[in-house]
Amino acid sequence: MTGTVTPAYDHLHALNLRLHRLGHLAAIAGWDQAANMPPGGNEARAAAQAELAALTHDLRTAPDLAQVFAGAADEALDDDQRANLAETEREWRLATALPAELVQRRQLATARCEHAWRQQRPANDWAGFLPNFREVLAVAREEAALLAARSGLSRYDALMDRFEPGMRSATVDRLFGELRQWLPGLIAHVVERQRMRDQVMPLLQPVGPFPVDAQRRLCEQVMRLLGFDFDAGRLDVSTHPFCGGVPEDVRLTTRFREEEFLGSLMGTVHETGHGRYEQNLPRSWLGQPLAQARSMAIHESQSLAFEMQLGAHPGFVARLAPLLRAAFAPQPAFEPANLARLMTRVQPGLIRVDADEVTYPAHVILRYEIERPLIEGEIEPEDIPALWDAKMHELLGLDTRGNFRDGPLQDVHWPEGLFGYFPCYTLGAMYAAQWFAAMRREQPGLDARIAAGELQPVFDWLRERVWSQGSRWSTPELVRRASGEPLDPAHLRAHLERRYLGD
Amino acid sequence: MTGTVTPAYDHLHALNLRLHRLGHLAAIAGWDQAANMPPGGNEARAAAQAELAALTHDLRTAPDLAQVFAGAADEALDDDQRANLAETEREWRLATALPAELVQRRQLATARCEHAWRQQRPANDWAGFLPNFREVLAVAREEAALLAARSGLSRYDALMDRFEPGMRSATVDRLFGELRQWLPGLIAHVVERQRMRDQVMPLLQPVGPFPVDAQRRLCEQVMRLLGFDFDAGRLDVSTHPFCGGVPEDVRLTTRFREEEFLGSLMGTVHETGHGRYEQNLPRSWLGQPLAQARSMAIHESQSLAFEMQLGAHPGFVARLAPLLRAAFAPQPAFEPANLARLMTRVQPGLIRVDADEVTYPAHVILRYEIERPLIEGEIEPEDIPALWDAKMHELLGLDTRGNFRDGPLQDVHWPEGLFGYFPCYTLGAMYAAQWFAAMRREQPGLDARIAAGELQPVFDWLRERVWSQGSRWSTPELVRRASGEPLDPAHLRAHLERRYLGD
Repeated sequence: MTGTVTPAYDHLHALNLRLHRLGHLAAIAGWDQAANMPPGGNEARAAAQAELAALTHDLRTAPDLAQVFAGAADEALDDDQRANLAETEREWRLATALPAELVQRRQLATARCEHAWRQQRPANDWAGFLPNFREVLAVAREEAALLAARSGLSRYDALMDRFEPGMRSATVDRLFGELRQWLPGLIAHVVERQRMRDQVMPLLQPVGPFPVDAQRRLCEQVMRLLGFDFDAGRLDVSTHPFCGGVPEDVRLTTRFREEEFLGSLMGTVHETGHGRYEQNLPRSWLGQPLAQARSMAIHESQSLAFEMQLGAHPGFVARLAPLLRAAFAPQPAFEPANLARLMTRVQPGLIRVDADEVTYPAHVILRYEIERPLIEGEIEPEDIPALWDAKMHELLGLDTRGNFRDGPLQDVHWPEGLFGYFPCYTLGAMYAAQWFAAMRREQPGLDARIAAGELQPVFDWLRERVWSQGSRWSTPELVRRASGEPLDPAHLRAHLERRYLGD
Repeated sequence: MTGTVTPAYDHLHALNLRLHRLGHLAAIAGWDQAANMPPGGNEARAAAQAELAALTHDLRTAPDLAQVFAGAADEALDDDQRANLAETEREWRLATALPAELVQRRQLATARCEHAWRQQRPANDWAGFLPNFREVLAVAREEAALLAARSGLSRYDALMDRFEPGMRSATVDRLFGELRQWLPGLIAHVVERQRMRDQVMPLLQPVGPFPVDAQRRLCEQVMRLLGFDFDAGRLDVSTHPFCGGVPEDVRLTTRFREEEFLGSLMGTVHETGHGRYEQNLPRSWLGQPLAQARSMAIHESQSLAFEMQLGAHPGFVARLAPLLRAAFAPQPAFEPANLARLMTRVQPGLIRVDADEVTYPAHVILRYEIERPLIEGEIEPEDIPALWDAKMHELLGLDTRGNFRDGPLQDVHWPEGLFGYFPCYTLGAMYAAQWFAAMRREQPGLDARIAAGELQPVFDWLRERVWSQGSRWSTPELVRRASGEPLDPAHLRAHLERRYLGD
């Protein structure tokens, strides 16, 4: 056989590989910026990243691609190639949907708003924030309108679709609506019960602080326990923990505080979930959209599967306890049952990123119920504080009046124009609960095995059902294939009730 | 004024900036590869770097550039722009001189040879090395012939010109010829004198090894003393120390051994010389060839100015001594005069990279006297061992027969096809001696000031005469402007005689 029988598809395949390789350099430079770069390097790094972004944008939006996609559609492709083509086309549509002028305006508006927000948040300066934020919102609405016109979706759905392809606000309304019915009651119940029943020994600092070196070694030990491949990844330090790098070389970060270690340890467990997903995407397809992680919510389902489902599991906590005793001077608080209580304290609070797994969905529901009508043009930025306060009161019983700093100014998402992202956090928690429900159904002895220190069954299930599937299926199809049913928030409820209201 | 009056020059200016920004990402990824990357990331990293290299090669060799250069030559440019245009054109000629097919063959031949060499060197396998090396040499000769045809230079000169623009073998012959007359005698004299006179206290390890953390802090302290800007750079660890990154964010590396610290400390001082050159290139021109370091030999003159001229200066050693006592448990060997003796031990040896500053030029002369006729076709690879042995005998009085491992197999340069690079090391040592001779002539109190702990006069001189000049002048012109005379190897001789034969 000479020549190729699928020239158009092959063209796209080669382009994907090229973009993957250039994206590698952007990813490593981005990680370096957070983990290593001295402040004086910032300007040059930003210019370098912008140059590469412009260059890859040109590659992604080359005028001849429309014809190539048309040609590929008629070629004889197998199922994998067909799925890869669909994902490639999805990315191409996103890249070509917005005129360069709008992309530039968005960049300017979000950079200005985010930069000023860094000072406005500590200063509680909502009035100062509003003019910049109005501009960010105006551009986001314009962007949403263009994407909506192209996709036929509603404007908010068009934005959310970038992060969670196929997810629609009609579905989120139903899912979060259900949550809303039982969550506030559950929170109140758990808080009261913990107040009445639990004696928690706080962590002591018996011989001074917890040394950072010991914490780092402990985190790496736990990452190994969780199967992280250090031949293809690292753990470093940055201000905001993240999972960066590339599937072939995953760069996790955490942050250490000498007076406390559970935060950084469980944060590392969280990032390890992201990291194992990346490390175990289908290798033979690497460099193609088919081999990418399915979506933000599915990604979050992996980090939460590790941090919440597995990390706070009594069986896993029992494995942690001796590691803590070896890492630090032993203390009574390291007793497994006490450690588990420390990890599952529930306390309504103002700050999303500090929230426990029971109250976290309330923060997400609140943001979703504000950003959706904001994008659809049903409310305006000046309506936010009153809505925020009312919803914090309804959902968590907290008064936030006048406290913008710990209210609508707390997140970086809106200043950065990231509308449609928030639902992914709680969808991820739902998926994670559903994965474990399916595992338990299929392997009735699962909890006993975890209690006996066996984590492999969990990893095997996730690898087979989620990691190795990449972006082969739409999210609903992936969920159905992995767990045998569509997404059902009852699993999250059952998980929370079992953990927080069981004996 | 509307529009530009120098459209062709502006086009080249913008292209340079673009290449500088993309080069930033390659530099950081290269540093990361040496300092951080887990082994599993290697293949993906190589593919990513190759992709970017192909892309920048396309930018550098775009067919329309010949016309742009022709246009720019007729535009009204100021002196700086004219110099920048000349450097831009020099780089363009290098990029376009070789057909892609030859570049690819070179890449394959050097990769194969270098890869096999890693095993062949420890195995002392000269016979196994020869076939691969013959291929590397064949490609290098082809490359040299093409570059020579384009430039009108001899073949070896055409290769050397890539590293040291304007340097010719006629000049190197004269310079190294002079050295050859007095160096072997000087070495013998110094060795005998040190044997007779010097009582050197060895470094003790009084309470176990020298801890790596303490060594790292010491190195950073000395880098600060030497003016390295940590707001625009870092120190990290890699197997082979180097100065990487970009002028805006300079990444130095070193390596630590717990049983010895002087090697890593003086290696760091060496890299700091490279680093300060990069950090102090003319900022307003950054991104243009005019703002690049002049050449490899001038770069080496900065690292050797720091390591040898300044680093082993009694005044500087006196400043080091208290830092060592603070970093490690104090010991008698830290007494300044003893430290200086430790740093200036002369001992003929087989290995270039371990050589002291007195014997080092002998290693370089030997390599130059072999690689020049090799490229010109006057000798063949099978002639190397006998030549090597004869020259080691003449220059350093050592017998290397049969020891290929510590003979012609010791360097990575030839397996990698880097012919024409070796002279830069000793040219750099000559320039460094000439800089300090000029400084002393202009500032008669210089040594007293260094002895009093003042290093600023040295930095100010180097900044004004070398660093800030970038590539504005050809090397001979830079040397004349900086030191008031052409390169004169008498300064290196005077330096060595003063330091090693003075009282």
